[in-house]
Amino acid sequence: MTGPNPLPAPSAALAKVFTHIADNQDSFVQRVMDYVRHPSISAQNIGIREVAALLVAMLEKLGFAAETIPTAGHPMVLGRWDKAPGAPTVLLYGHYDVQPPDPLEAWVSPPFEPAIRDGRIYARGIGDNKGQHFAQLLAIESHLAVHGRLPCNVIFLLEGEEEIGSPRIADFVAEHRDKLKADFVVTADGPLHESGTPTICYGVRGMASFELRVRHAGRDLHSGNFGGVAPNPIWTLVHLLGTMKNAAGEITIDGLADAVIPPTANELAAAARLPLDLDTVKAELGLDRLDVPAGRGYYERLMFHPTLTINGLHGGYGGPGTKTVLPHEAFAKCDIRLVEAMTPADVLAKVAAHVKRHAPEVEFLPGNGMLPSKTPLESPYGETIRRAIQIAQGITPLEYPAVGGSLPDYVFTKTLGIPAFVVPYANADEANHAPNENLKLDCFVNGIRTGAALLDQLGRQEG
Amino acid sequence: MTGPNPLPAPSAALAKVFTHIADNQDSFVQRVMDYVRHPSISAQNIGIREVAALLVAMLEKLGFAAETIPTAGHPMVLGRWDKAPGAPTVLLYGHYDVQPPDPLEAWVSPPFEPAIRDGRIYARGIGDNKGQHFAQLLAIESHLAVHGRLPCNVIFLLEGEEEIGSPRIADFVAEHRDKLKADFVVTADGPLHESGTPTICYGVRGMASFELRVRHAGRDLHSGNFGGVAPNPIWTLVHLLGTMKNAAGEITIDGLADAVIPPTANELAAAARLPLDLDTVKAELGLDRLDVPAGRGYYERLMFHPTLTINGLHGGYGGPGTKTVLPHEAFAKCDIRLVEAMTPADVLAKVAAHVKRHAPEVEFLPGNGMLPSKTPLESPYGETIRRAIQIAQGITPLEYPAVGGSLPDYVFTKTLGIPAFVVPYANADEANHAPNENLKLDCFVNGIRTGAALLDQLGRQEG
Repeated sequence: MTGPNPLPAPSAALAKVFTHIADNQDSFVQRVMDYVRHPSISAQNIGIREVAALLVAMLEKLGFAAETIPTAGHPMVLGRWDKAPGAPTVLLYGHYDVQPPDPLEAWVSPPFEPAIRDGRIYARGIGDNKGQHFAQLLAIESHLAVHGRLPCNVIFLLEGEEEIGSPRIADFVAEHRDKLKADFVVTADGPLHESGTPTICYGVRGMASFELRVRHAGRDLHSGNFGGVAPNPIWTLVHLLGTMKNAAGEITIDGLADAVIPPTANELAAAARLPLDLDTVKAELGLDRLDVPAGRGYYERLMFHPTLTINGLHGGYGGPGTKTVLPHEAFAKCDIRLVEAMTPADVLAKVAAHVKRHAPEVEFLPGNGMLPSKTPLESPYGETIRRAIQIAQGITPLEYPAVGGSLPDYVFTKTLGIPAFVVPYANADEANHAPNENLKLDCFVNGIRTGAALLDQLGRQEG
Repeated sequence: MTGPNPLPAPSAALAKVFTHIADNQDSFVQRVMDYVRHPSISAQNIGIREVAALLVAMLEKLGFAAETIPTAGHPMVLGRWDKAPGAPTVLLYGHYDVQPPDPLEAWVSPPFEPAIRDGRIYARGIGDNKGQHFAQLLAIESHLAVHGRLPCNVIFLLEGEEEIGSPRIADFVAEHRDKLKADFVVTADGPLHESGTPTICYGVRGMASFELRVRHAGRDLHSGNFGGVAPNPIWTLVHLLGTMKNAAGEITIDGLADAVIPPTANELAAAARLPLDLDTVKAELGLDRLDVPAGRGYYERLMFHPTLTINGLHGGYGGPGTKTVLPHEAFAKCDIRLVEAMTPADVLAKVAAHVKRHAPEVEFLPGNGMLPSKTPLESPYGETIRRAIQIAQGITPLEYPAVGGSLPDYVFTKTLGIPAFVVPYANADEANHAPNENLKLDCFVNGIRTGAALLDQLGRQEG
């Protein structure tokens, strides 16, 4: 980027760390390949404890007070370095478990035999998430190697169940809040923008899922003999769902949006600054149109408004040709994405009340829930991260006030009450959860440099 | 029935026929059992031609000019007796094909080894429809045995594809109308009222089926990343279907009911006279409620109003638990039951136009269609049949202006332009299309007597 505001340059201390990273790049690549060679598949309980032990050993070697902490599921790995009194404390969150590698036959090289091709490391977990938190570890190691100490305090929290939905993270954080006292959280996970530009994400939407079930007659009926006199569960669902969201896409469940805090002017402005080519989005998704109401931005809709999605609806005959049946049962599965300050409990109660009022014969089954999370754009740590990326990568990151999906970031922003940022290091085509998962060498090195620059920046602030 | 209007008594000529029937009852039962011993399964093309040939031989033995007439499918059997100049001609329609007997293991005695238990004959086809048209044949035979001639002219038309949807009957009747010149049609098929009371049915609803298909994105999407901005095909169907029928059950497709001819005062009165116990209907169907609008009768709704049934709707995730997917395709299969004077072509065109107007991205696929049929309650042949039943069975039949289901009776009322009546002989629990299909011996004999009384009544009228 050129112009009146040149990007900041590294301090002399950081420049030495960058040199160390450059000098050791080949060895770092070898070591991350050694790390991902160890499977750690949470869904299949393969290698989890071995990799947790490996991480504790690595953290201890760096001078961290490290431990595995048991949970009802796979253990958490916690490491603490607190020898910078007066400096801020950053909590680095990641996860050491990986997705199952199936289908194996689709991999060019085996998932747990890392290989380099065309400037990328290929291996299960290299992008999601082992390669990314290993980059953070190497940033710490490089600082220690050059300066013998870190410029700030660091807590490393690595989960072993992220790929199975983080079922234990909320309770764990609530229970161990004393060990997790930090000024802010950085999660290096997920991909960069598809242009290759780094990003900082300040929020995620929450989620509440539910199912609607209807059963009318005791069996399927003949549509001629009973059509028009016997109630039809699919019509019941169609009419009920029609009261929940109108054709313009606006949710019409009574009171559902009562808790919504509208976006700030800064958030709206940040969303409007994001690059967006709707034609490219449509082409990529194979869509003729997007449901973006006139006068509202695509990102505004996705970041700041709740949405109600029917995940599936099934009832009656679905085979070839026709069958003149009047079905006797049907169901719909739905999820609502939540924005600040909606809660799953309140939302599900309001859906339940709406269903009871409009179609009392429909059974309402509440499902999973997750709170939304948002860190203010004005948080000073946002500026810290932005400067670190500028110094390490020579580019100004895109800043997302929120993304549409859901992650348990609320355990940091709400349970711990501290700002949380997602700062991905992986290339957009990392193929996470898919065969031939990969991480570009450039991205890996930029991750190490960014981690190092962040520590350096924090050493210039008070905690 | 007692009261001021005693039921009519048989003529002396008919009384002799009744005596013949009583004297030969055991032999008639043996012969119908011999008839249904021959399988004639249209769906599997088993025994069709053998049974058609058997029928031609039986008709010829009775002095009918009989033939099998080839179609693109299974042949029609046509027999004509026209030696009563000046007397009316009745066309007796039936079908000689039967349903496949599966599941075989559910039959107490094998489906093609007829057996008598507890006053019923058990065999595939004994109720639907071979036992019923065989009763008509025996009525003719008895008249001929006693009097040497029939009191009226008779055309016997037996189809071999009724159980596979009568795909050839419309073209056949149109093509052979010269051979089918009759004054009215009687179909002895289906069951009596569940109380055992005989019925006369004057009409059937027509039918038009269609499918709605929607495909938005090229693949399923993540509901967090795209919920609220990418269109959801299930929501598209929900909102489209919501414009087609309201929550009160009224069809709201523009112009759909334009052609509807409201029921006559006689038809409404006849419907109101039918026995109806809504609590029993609900209990039998396992329903808490019926969709009968206040001020309208159950039968009125079923007989005189079109109905729109969703036969099936499927899209997205239907497995256990939750999946936060935004599906990319969905479909709904529907049928509309038609009343006079709606036509499938007009109805499907109006649905197509409605879909195009409200949701142009939805694909409309027209399906099968069948015209409705109605014979005026005032037809003099209604009175003829009523008297025949009163004389033969000693009870006044229930008269249905129409039933909710669909049969191709329009080929008689519209293509041939003559009144058509359904006059069932089988017990209500005949288990047609099911294992252990059966016909009560009483019902079989009443069928022969009713057929005989009808011929006798017609001999007293001019054609």
